[in-house]
Amino acid sequence: MSQSVDPAFEARLGQAAARMEEGLTAALSGTSPLLAGAPERLLAAMRHGSLDGGKRLRPFLVEESAALFGADDATAGPVAQALECVHCYSLIHDDLPAMDDDDLRRGRPTVHKAYDEATAILAGDALLTLAFGLVAEGDGGIEPAARLALIRLLSREAGAAGMAGGQALDLAAETTTLDEAEIARMQAMKTGALIAFATEAGAILAGASPADRRVMRRYGEVVGLAFQLADDLLDETADAATLGKAAGKDAARGKKTLPALRGIAWTRAELERLVAEAEGLLEPFGERAETLRATARFVARRSK
Amino acid sequence: MSQSVDPAFEARLGQAAARMEEGLTAALSGTSPLLAGAPERLLAAMRHGSLDGGKRLRPFLVEESAALFGADDATAGPVAQALECVHCYSLIHDDLPAMDDDDLRRGRPTVHKAYDEATAILAGDALLTLAFGLVAEGDGGIEPAARLALIRLLSREAGAAGMAGGQALDLAAETTTLDEAEIARMQAMKTGALIAFATEAGAILAGASPADRRVMRRYGEVVGLAFQLADDLLDETADAATLGKAAGKDAARGKKTLPALRGIAWTRAELERLVAEAEGLLEPFGERAETLRATARFVARRSK
Repeated sequence: MSQSVDPAFEARLGQAAARMEEGLTAALSGTSPLLAGAPERLLAAMRHGSLDGGKRLRPFLVEESAALFGADDATAGPVAQALECVHCYSLIHDDLPAMDDDDLRRGRPTVHKAYDEATAILAGDALLTLAFGLVAEGDGGIEPAARLALIRLLSREAGAAGMAGGQALDLAAETTTLDEAEIARMQAMKTGALIAFATEAGAILAGASPADRRVMRRYGEVVGLAFQLADDLLDETADAATLGKAAGKDAARGKKTLPALRGIAWTRAELERLVAEAEGLLEPFGERAETLRATARFVARRSK
Repeated sequence: MSQSVDPAFEARLGQAAARMEEGLTAALSGTSPLLAGAPERLLAAMRHGSLDGGKRLRPFLVEESAALFGADDATAGPVAQALECVHCYSLIHDDLPAMDDDDLRRGRPTVHKAYDEATAILAGDALLTLAFGLVAEGDGGIEPAARLALIRLLSREAGAAGMAGGQALDLAAETTTLDEAEIARMQAMKTGALIAFATEAGAILAGASPADRRVMRRYGEVVGLAFQLADDLLDETADAATLGKAAGKDAARGKKTLPALRGIAWTRAELERLVAEAEGLLEPFGERAETLRATARFVARRSK
């Protein structure tokens, strides 16, 4: 396996995360037309669940995929923020007592612990609702027809046929044993759908051709597969101190993962196969796609 | 007070509800591009929470408001269905144990009783997510720019500054005592926002002028006020057998309502004032607005 740390890439990812933090802070300030007049406590819960958190991989993929086709960060930004709102709403709801029942997220109390359960449900609902407004809101840069395509795609990938459906299948897996194909389907929906949205959305908002849009969709699917596999591998092999969250959680809950079924050696080989597929998909774009190639390597080889 | 039953109006409302049932059934069949591949149990929970229920007043208002400006039901239908999805998602989440903790809705088990709490949360999430896809999806009939305006407005009226924010204020009211202005603000957000969306959305999708759009917005606000006031009045005065649900619930929960604060006579007079305001707003549209005038009377004078 090649070197897993790429300082130039990680610096770029960090800068994008800082920009995303600024953009989300503004979007959630409560002074935008979409939120003016909202109750302060609900806004605070929405901020608690979405600001100051995570690698911001999904919005990074939106912006980098858009950049590949010539759209700048100012154009891609609101779509990237919207996607991060959807991701964060899903974490808030997944953490609820009726779902995964987690008290901590990124080292801080989850929203229902910091506020209360009802507020956490509503904060998630409101972030999801905001997301669609953000995609519809921007002025200029993106054609109206492309904005509508983005909204349809986000509705599909985040909804019952995508992320929400994947979470439903994941919950069902606590009481039944999934086979490999069922695990793959669940993960493609629960984690893969939003990552594939990210890269396809970048292509759509930048006005890429249908053929390029399909390539970017497949690239996102491959990155999503690698993301989940690396996550499951870390859950099997890393300790809690490295992860910043409990390790071995899947096994403790009786959830089967592909690394558990196939072994660690198979998983490492599969991750490298996915990196090679992602790199191959991006080859026609040459040097311009280097950051996206580095993203695939980063996702597959990260150690936390 | 005038006659409260208008058979021609109620027949029209019933026909629209039957059409809405058909439209929603198709939208939730799981074969649409937005839902194909969704897990069957989650789809069933979404259907349980949205089909076979209610007067369908909000989608009726979308269709009748659109008709006033020349748009037919086929054009308005998907927007009306989307609004009903948002309304039904809010009922599913409001019924959850962490919120209003209701076991029955329209005489049937609530979604978390018929399925489980996690599935109810996800079914609500998925209905909300679907709603935006439905507005974005239609082909023809509505200009892309108007569709984007509808999505921005739905995001605002359903989100933290609208319905979700109103529910947050309503929950807070269980532990603090709201004054009249605070009750009015909470109800304008919790109930009023979606009803005002309905009538403004009808105007937007039909390409009405900004001035007509403002009139329809105000008409919706007035109908929303009347709707809530009539609801609170029924909660004070009717018995459970008439309502089909528990009466006196607000008082039992320590929630103050305007009828409780101001008395029944004031409330009846205020309802008639609102009917007159709604009728006055619609006067310039003449005979064509008769159904919308009848809607205001129906909402204010209904006995269940």
